[in-house]
Amino acid sequence: MNELELLKHIYATATAPSAEVPIPPGDDMAMVSVGGRSILVAIDQVVAGCHYDEAVTPLSLVGRKAITRCLSDVAAMAARPLVSLVAATLPVALGERRATELFDAVRETAEHYDCPLIGGDIAIYRQVAGPLVCSVAIMAEPTGLGPIRRAGARVGDRVYVTGVLGGTRADDGLGHHLLFEPRLAEARLLAETLGQRLHAMIDLSDGLGRDASHLAERSGVQIVFDAERIPCRSGAPWRQALSEGEDYELCFVATGEVPSTLEGIPVTAAGEVCRREPGAPLVVVRSGGRNLDATELGWEHRSP
Amino acid sequence: MNELELLKHIYATATAPSAEVPIPPGDDMAMVSVGGRSILVAIDQVVAGCHYDEAVTPLSLVGRKAITRCLSDVAAMAARPLVSLVAATLPVALGERRATELFDAVRETAEHYDCPLIGGDIAIYRQVAGPLVCSVAIMAEPTGLGPIRRAGARVGDRVYVTGVLGGTRADDGLGHHLLFEPRLAEARLLAETLGQRLHAMIDLSDGLGRDASHLAERSGVQIVFDAERIPCRSGAPWRQALSEGEDYELCFVATGEVPSTLEGIPVTAAGEVCRREPGAPLVVVRSGGRNLDATELGWEHRSP
Repeated sequence: MNELELLKHIYATATAPSAEVPIPPGDDMAMVSVGGRSILVAIDQVVAGCHYDEAVTPLSLVGRKAITRCLSDVAAMAARPLVSLVAATLPVALGERRATELFDAVRETAEHYDCPLIGGDIAIYRQVAGPLVCSVAIMAEPTGLGPIRRAGARVGDRVYVTGVLGGTRADDGLGHHLLFEPRLAEARLLAETLGQRLHAMIDLSDGLGRDASHLAERSGVQIVFDAERIPCRSGAPWRQALSEGEDYELCFVATGEVPSTLEGIPVTAAGEVCRREPGAPLVVVRSGGRNLDATELGWEHRSP
Repeated sequence: MNELELLKHIYATATAPSAEVPIPPGDDMAMVSVGGRSILVAIDQVVAGCHYDEAVTPLSLVGRKAITRCLSDVAAMAARPLVSLVAATLPVALGERRATELFDAVRETAEHYDCPLIGGDIAIYRQVAGPLVCSVAIMAEPTGLGPIRRAGARVGDRVYVTGVLGGTRADDGLGHHLLFEPRLAEARLLAETLGQRLHAMIDLSDGLGRDASHLAERSGVQIVFDAERIPCRSGAPWRQALSEGEDYELCFVATGEVPSTLEGIPVTAAGEVCRREPGAPLVVVRSGGRNLDATELGWEHRSP
């Protein structure tokens, strides 16, 4: 059983754009048209034991991550967040004080990013045992020239990455995967600066190899990274930076000149867009004169 | 730990309407304004062992219920569904065939009610054990005179209930709570027919006593039911009809003439709106010459 295959099955009949749903499932967010207004929507979840280590993670960081994971999807579309909703299932043993800590963090994080929490549902496990599950749905609106999608990369474009990758989960279970800043401001600045030269974008949640393959697939191209140019967090080898996931940085494809920093965050040209021959890998890493199939280096999905 | 108290805590700072959020949390759905368009949003969840009995319930009915529970909130606002999103956490032992059965039902139910599924997230428990959790977020748009809210009941109004209540969970664990029809068409017909004489509405998920108390609280009134006029499903005593929950019928408050059926569904005048003296119960049931505090007869919340 595999999350991506299940999602593909769900959306098998829903992949054609329509007037009501101009961006169907398959991007970082879907877009719906309501009386001529475009609204972007997405849903994501944080599960104890899957997305964080219960034994060490303060619930304030769990609540923060539930919102910021969704905001990273908003950033990937270069959009502006509007409102959020939360549904949580809590073990009764969590207790009221810790539950309050969780929801205070959800609400405060949502407000901090101008994405107020306007609805919620809570269920408490009383007769069954289960881990904490916190789902967040988010609405956003396109800015500037409209949402940046996964499709649109063209042969000859360059592939860029913001920040540094890998080493996102520290030895103690904490670290970047809980504390990252969603690249909302950087994405919108990028869209404003590059205009129509910004061809495609995705956020890095499952690992550069896996996420770039989504972008390549949607765009009908091959992406070739240069292993030595993948920006690694101190101590992280490039294979880890490529496959670990939970970076919540942006991977984007553009032509022409691109700034070397955005709001102080480094921007690195790490690869290029090539023609994809039939049957060829979606993403390749060049290392020491060899071409490796990067989609096989990544995790299938982040959830254990 | 109590779901309603936690929700109240979350929204403690978000109860005032604003230009961006004309209907803040506290109704069946919140309303957000985007470029002059009003969008209603809500989120709800179905949890194994809480909202259905795993041992007996086909996953097709679990998927159906995940959507129809949300649609019942849309009905409560007399609104029109637009799109839905699903986030599911699945035990790995569920297996691909059963997971597919679940998602097919979610998608088909959503399509059946003109509320296409346009986004989703799936996590699979691999290192932890846990029950199936299926969260659905829904967007809708107001129709006619606008959304019908919980506030608005006036002293002298009558209180009506659609359909019959109680006996929603059959001895085998199946029954109405899985098979109900959300009262979308009935609610919109009601809003069209009564116009401004339809003062307030809520859907019945937690039990008539509990749900009517939300309506009474928001409206600043007391609701008095006549025990003999509460429409009970065959075999269900009125106390069960009042407190069991999962009816997914409509409870509404109106003045003047009200049709006795809506789309073939009976409509029963079961109570009236009275002035609420300070400290008095929100909902009272008159039975055999006695006045009982109905809010103490209902469940605190449906989740066990």
